[in-house]
Amino acid sequence: MTDTKAVKAALRTQHIETPSWAYGNSGTRFKVFSQEGVPRTPQEKIDDAAQVHRFTGVAPRVALHIPWDRVEDYAALATYARDRGVRVGAINSNVFQDNDYMLGSVTNPDPAVRKKALNHLLDCVDIMDATGSRDLKLWFSDGTNYPGQDDIRARQDRLAEALAAVYERLGDEQRFLLEYKLFEPAFYSTDVPDWGTSYAHCLKLGPKAQVVVDTGHHAPGTNIEFIVAFLLREGKLGGFDFNSRFYADDDLMVGAADPFQLFRIMHEVIQGGGFSDEIAFMLDQCHNIEPKIPGQIRSVMNVQEATAKALLVDGEALRSAQQAGDVLGANAVFMDAYNTDVRPLLAELREEMGLDPDPMAAYARSGYFEKIRDERREGQAAGWGA
Amino acid sequence: MTDTKAVKAALRTQHIETPSWAYGNSGTRFKVFSQEGVPRTPQEKIDDAAQVHRFTGVAPRVALHIPWDRVEDYAALATYARDRGVRVGAINSNVFQDNDYMLGSVTNPDPAVRKKALNHLLDCVDIMDATGSRDLKLWFSDGTNYPGQDDIRARQDRLAEALAAVYERLGDEQRFLLEYKLFEPAFYSTDVPDWGTSYAHCLKLGPKAQVVVDTGHHAPGTNIEFIVAFLLREGKLGGFDFNSRFYADDDLMVGAADPFQLFRIMHEVIQGGGFSDEIAFMLDQCHNIEPKIPGQIRSVMNVQEATAKALLVDGEALRSAQQAGDVLGANAVFMDAYNTDVRPLLAELREEMGLDPDPMAAYARSGYFEKIRDERREGQAAGWGA
Amino acid sequence: MTDTKAVKAALRTQHIETPSWAYGNSGTRFKVFSQEGVPRTPQEKIDDAAQVHRFTGVAPRVALHIPWDRVEDYAALATYARDRGVRVGAINSNVFQDNDYMLGSVTNPDPAVRKKALNHLLDCVDIMDATGSRDLKLWFSDGTNYPGQDDIRARQDRLAEALAAVYERLGDEQRFLLEYKLFEPAFYSTDVPDWGTSYAHCLKLGPKAQVVVDTGHHAPGTNIEFIVAFLLREGKLGGFDFNSRFYADDDLMVGAADPFQLFRIMHEVIQGGGFSDEIAFMLDQCHNIEPKIPGQIRSVMNVQEATAKALLVDGEALRSAQQAGDVLGANAVFMDAYNTDVRPLLAELREEMGLDPDPMAAYARSGYFEKIRDERREGQAAGWGA
Amino acid sequence: MTDTKAVKAALRTQHIETPSWAYGNSGTRFKVFSQEGVPRTPQEKIDDAAQVHRFTGVAPRVALHIPWDRVEDYAALATYARDRGVRVGAINSNVFQDNDYMLGSVTNPDPAVRKKALNHLLDCVDIMDATGSRDLKLWFSDGTNYPGQDDIRARQDRLAEALAAVYERLGDEQRFLLEYKLFEPAFYSTDVPDWGTSYAHCLKLGPKAQVVVDTGHHAPGTNIEFIVAFLLREGKLGGFDFNSRFYADDDLMVGAADPFQLFRIMHEVIQGGGFSDEIAFMLDQCHNIEPKIPGQIRSVMNVQEATAKALLVDGEALRSAQQAGDVLGANAVFMDAYNTDVRPLLAELREEMGLDPDPMAAYARSGYFEKIRDERREGQAAGWGA
Repeated sequence: MTDTKAVKAALRTQHIETPSWAYGNSGTRFKVFSQEGVPRTPQEKIDDAAQVHRFTGVAPRVALHIPWDRVEDYAALATYARDRGVRVGAINSNVFQDNDYMLGSVTNPDPAVRKKALNHLLDCVDIMDATGSRDLKLWFSDGTNYPGQDDIRARQDRLAEALAAVYERLGDEQRFLLEYKLFEPAFYSTDVPDWGTSYAHCLKLGPKAQVVVDTGHHAPGTNIEFIVAFLLREGKLGGFDFNSRFYADDDLMVGAADPFQLFRIMHEVIQGGGFSDEIAFMLDQCHNIEPKIPGQIRSVMNVQEATAKALLVDGEALRSAQQAGDVLGANAVFMDAYNTDVRPLLAELREEMGLDPDPMAAYARSGYFEKIRDERREGQAAGWGA
Repeated sequence: MTDTKAVKAALRTQHIETPSWAYGNSGTRFKVFSQEGVPRTPQEKIDDAAQVHRFTGVAPRVALHIPWDRVEDYAALATYARDRGVRVGAINSNVFQDNDYMLGSVTNPDPAVRKKALNHLLDCVDIMDATGSRDLKLWFSDGTNYPGQDDIRARQDRLAEALAAVYERLGDEQRFLLEYKLFEPAFYSTDVPDWGTSYAHCLKLGPKAQVVVDTGHHAPGTNIEFIVAFLLREGKLGGFDFNSRFYADDDLMVGAADPFQLFRIMHEVIQGGGFSDEIAFMLDQCHNIEPKIPGQIRSVMNVQEATAKALLVDGEALRSAQQAGDVLGANAVFMDAYNTDVRPLLAELREEMGLDPDPMAAYARSGYFEKIRDERREGQAAGWGA
Repeated sequence: MTDTKAVKAALRTQHIETPSWAYGNSGTRFKVFSQEGVPRTPQEKIDDAAQVHRFTGVAPRVALHIPWDRVEDYAALATYARDRGVRVGAINSNVFQDNDYMLGSVTNPDPAVRKKALNHLLDCVDIMDATGSRDLKLWFSDGTNYPGQDDIRARQDRLAEALAAVYERLGDEQRFLLEYKLFEPAFYSTDVPDWGTSYAHCLKLGPKAQVVVDTGHHAPGTNIEFIVAFLLREGKLGGFDFNSRFYADDDLMVGAADPFQLFRIMHEVIQGGGFSDEIAFMLDQCHNIEPKIPGQIRSVMNVQEATAKALLVDGEALRSAQQAGDVLGANAVFMDAYNTDVRPLLAELREEMGLDPDPMAAYARSGYFEKIRDERREGQAAGWGA
Repeated sequence: MTDTKAVKAALRTQHIETPSWAYGNSGTRFKVFSQEGVPRTPQEKIDDAAQVHRFTGVAPRVALHIPWDRVEDYAALATYARDRGVRVGAINSNVFQDNDYMLGSVTNPDPAVRKKALNHLLDCVDIMDATGSRDLKLWFSDGTNYPGQDDIRARQDRLAEALAAVYERLGDEQRFLLEYKLFEPAFYSTDVPDWGTSYAHCLKLGPKAQVVVDTGHHAPGTNIEFIVAFLLREGKLGGFDFNSRFYADDDLMVGAADPFQLFRIMHEVIQGGGFSDEIAFMLDQCHNIEPKIPGQIRSVMNVQEATAKALLVDGEALRSAQQAGDVLGANAVFMDAYNTDVRPLLAELREEMGLDPDPMAAYARSGYFEKIRDERREGQAAGWGA
């Protein structure tokens, strides 16, 4: 696509969902550094998410995390969001932060713990009904730390049972997205360690079960864009949790560690027909040392830049070189798009959308940070597990 | 199983298949070091494989590699093997050593190359008909070296088409085993890079398509025994290519790099009902710097030792500790079996089978090496690509 | 060494230091699961460490962590330990858990933060003076998360300056051990990421600066025993932080993930003349899901087993096979020792030392756990950062 | 540096050395695919290298590999090169392709093999005298495949002895560059596996011994730019072997796998004062499936693009943000340079240098390929080991 008008039109349709927890404090096992102006309530997280949308124009949804975003009235929370110009997106279940889950949640050897975990998942679907959310994101920290600790296969049986029960509960317009992760917090075996495991479970259950790709959850050397292309071919890609990593699940800003990889992923998304709202483009990051709202804005911009470059790939020239077996020629067409500086195009697009061409500068000038820093001095800052 | 009688009975039923190519010269891209006494013909490779069976008693089959083991009359070759006390096992196809395959075989953008490759695969099934082999092993080196070089998804379409054609050709008692590998010789994308890809293709085709696990073909950190347990649960594990590695596809002797991992794999095999002839236990190694026949004997013994230890796991005690959530207790039961020295038990078993208790020493004393060293001075030693 | 008497004599001299923090609660960034009976004070941690020594006989020292083990009177704490049959070992500095250290401690761009961090390190030497400790363990979490965030080289200058100041302060009988770690909590660059960096700094400073090897702090595929052999050859190995890992810095019980690796490490220690009190054998683990005291006992036993096997290697036979270029022969001598079941030998040794031959069972029977579970119900359990 | 004039001036001074072996056939252990027009002699390799310089203007040197480039008269070969507008660069020794080196070269347990290897290295210095080369590149494939195979420490002693002998032989203007590599072809231990090992040996010998960084020789996750910064700080960085990799030592075109990493490396080079002829910028790649001369041209251009971006980093703004602890601000300054499309600047520079702005197109139009394809049909194409 070399028609920049068409590229801009496509970019206007892109929606990037930000996670409520990115606005709270986060850290590593060594330390959670607290920052100023951090929200104390789900409502304040939504306020912050609305700022990201305000300055980027492409982040109209915010994902919730239960119980971190527990409220009395979820319908009211959805209205609160709508009043601030955003909507509630995916509901993220959390079955890893209760002492009962030390040896697992839905795969725990103890049936009582399994039942408790399943009930939480079903509660999350109730919340989706109230918020009008389409997607339930399922990530299980379940696994074992020591060889022999539990029966790997039996845990799959328990997992399948729980997933089937959740699937059964989903409404017609609802889906669950099953996340996989190589390791952490389980250090020997993880019950959903790779896309193949997630895919196999989802395939058995049906179209409302889809795989979600967290870009930080793979073994070193994994070709993530291959997985994206494969899942799209199978109709089993439900969405992304975007972030970036140099080592493990570092949860850095998406595009910060390997912007070329992000471009390659977006290329496969576009090639595979995944550039639609069927695929949820979500961020899942931790801003441990950088300010949170600007961290989200930068991340949204990074996804946009990678997308713009991917849209600029000259598909005809690429296919032609590929068919001819012209290795260097095909690679050159591909790199040509990547090497293009798309920031002017995105600035233009933003102006056409009535936005400031420079979201980072506009946010900095807005005074929002100074306002929340002052308003949020008291009380308990939100954070993981808070 | 703490009854050593039962352990020995189980061990008697284990069959480990050795690969014809392990007896020829092999090496790295830097150098193939030639050794003395290396076979020059498929028949001589079978002679050597027969020695491994003669001294271990559990290696009654030898896998062939086409075209490395090309002969005029495959039925005659099968008879030749039978006369030496072994049988022809799996047929390994090779669509990576012709100049035409530079950009791929069954996934090549050029339909003429794809056709050539498919014809080779179908020829391999003809050979299976002649040799009475059950398994066709499919490993594709296909992939790309540079981003953009070819269309990842189109290559999957081509792969699916070729696999369907091979599947169609298989007889009622025949199967194919689809191998996956993270990388090498393709260095950007590989068309069957992981178990999930192999599984998805096999699942669509039916029960005669099965996944084969090469223990050296994974990303760093991959939990291989998880994959084994998962595939057994799905009924999609067809067999193993055993070897070991510290880094990549090093193809060292199985059990040499991480004997504890091999034990864990055998534990899952046994737990998952995979200790049967439905699962092909094959070696796939390169003896680059060690003598080949002793290298194979040692490898067969290493598999036996890991199997014996896995058979010794006290299943009842293990399950009981697992159910109780006793992390250290369950791990202790597991390690108890691993820490047992099973060499006396295996020596006993061999004597009961009429074998020398020490296969390595017995082979060394046999004079076979001196014989082949003298007989095989002339001619072209077999090797990869020879 | 095939003389078991000599092996046992050597094993008697081995001292394994346990860390005070292993007795407190620990976890991942996702959750710290709390356990029963966890100590609330440095004194109670010492009580628990004394139990590990009581049942194993080879764990006579306990490492402290400042400020987690902050007390008014360190000399009194040392006396407390001695009264319970153990001694205070290494002092571990902590310059990563204060909000000031968000962008680094001794390498922070802000000189005031650097000064604060250095003062803490010097305070730790004061504590060593009081406790009579020989070793100051320095681990710096310092690094950056994003490319460009700070100047990699300037941070080395700041690091060198701090290390020189600490070196200067050390008494004649004191040393510091500089720890390296690939990543976490820094996710882009770490200021002491590998042994080479630690070695280079220590070399410049002199003999009182030594490298400490944490077995979980390497990139995938790193040959740790090579590093051990190399550092011993250079006279720059100061000690070990033992633990094990399948993925990253998992901090599992030593020997749990790869017992063969632990054996190979101990082989190099013995070969390189490192089996002496010059080398500190310390544990550094997190018992996130298993009980802490038994987790330490098991770990001590795992080190002992690996050591016993390494002592059993037939050095003469090994050297002879190595010199002859007999690859399989040399490997066989090596594996022969590894495959030996040394548990009977260790049981014998314990009985000779007046201990129960089975430390795990003896501890379980002792009633100590029931006692601390009851006594420690109130108050704040110790943990990282608590 | 935001002054494009200064950037262009700096780029004019950059010299990128191409390796003679890149023009010959290469491949993996599975297959060496032969290409058309491949040189058959060292002279023809130099002819091809001269083309790369002709079209890029910044590749005036070609590295030789002994014995692959063995000739009778090296002075004549140097003259041959000069007559074609290029010079002979580094001499690469090869002590890995003789059957004697199966168990090592300079670290072999057999003193006769060690002597042979050392003599080859000394011969290489003779060749340097004849060609006027400054640098001897030492890469040792030496290592072991199996635990116990040889004594890790004794091999270091042998290595040190050989290096000292070579160092002694070097002339006043000569250096050696000691290369390190994690693994391959050795699969258990490698005698120079990491920068620390190379650094320690070089440090002892003196200023004529320097470390060379091959960008494909590290463990997964290694921060290469940290190593570059560290070695520059120590005055021990001698040069680069540039290439790129997704997995192991893939030897792809530099910048093809991770262009952002190449930029970060060049940033550290410039920051650390390494942008001088003291640092040898060499390519070391294998064009297994792409045409060789265009593969080299593209690689040279990729290095130039990364360098240009690194030169564009606004150093003052960067330092200021770093000092202020402005994580996002510093990262933004850094990314700003990376995201700039420097191709127009480089096209301009080439025109100013009297070159075609598009070297790839100019080479394609030149008819050189058609000429060599026709001229080189007969004879033995050069390749590894040929």
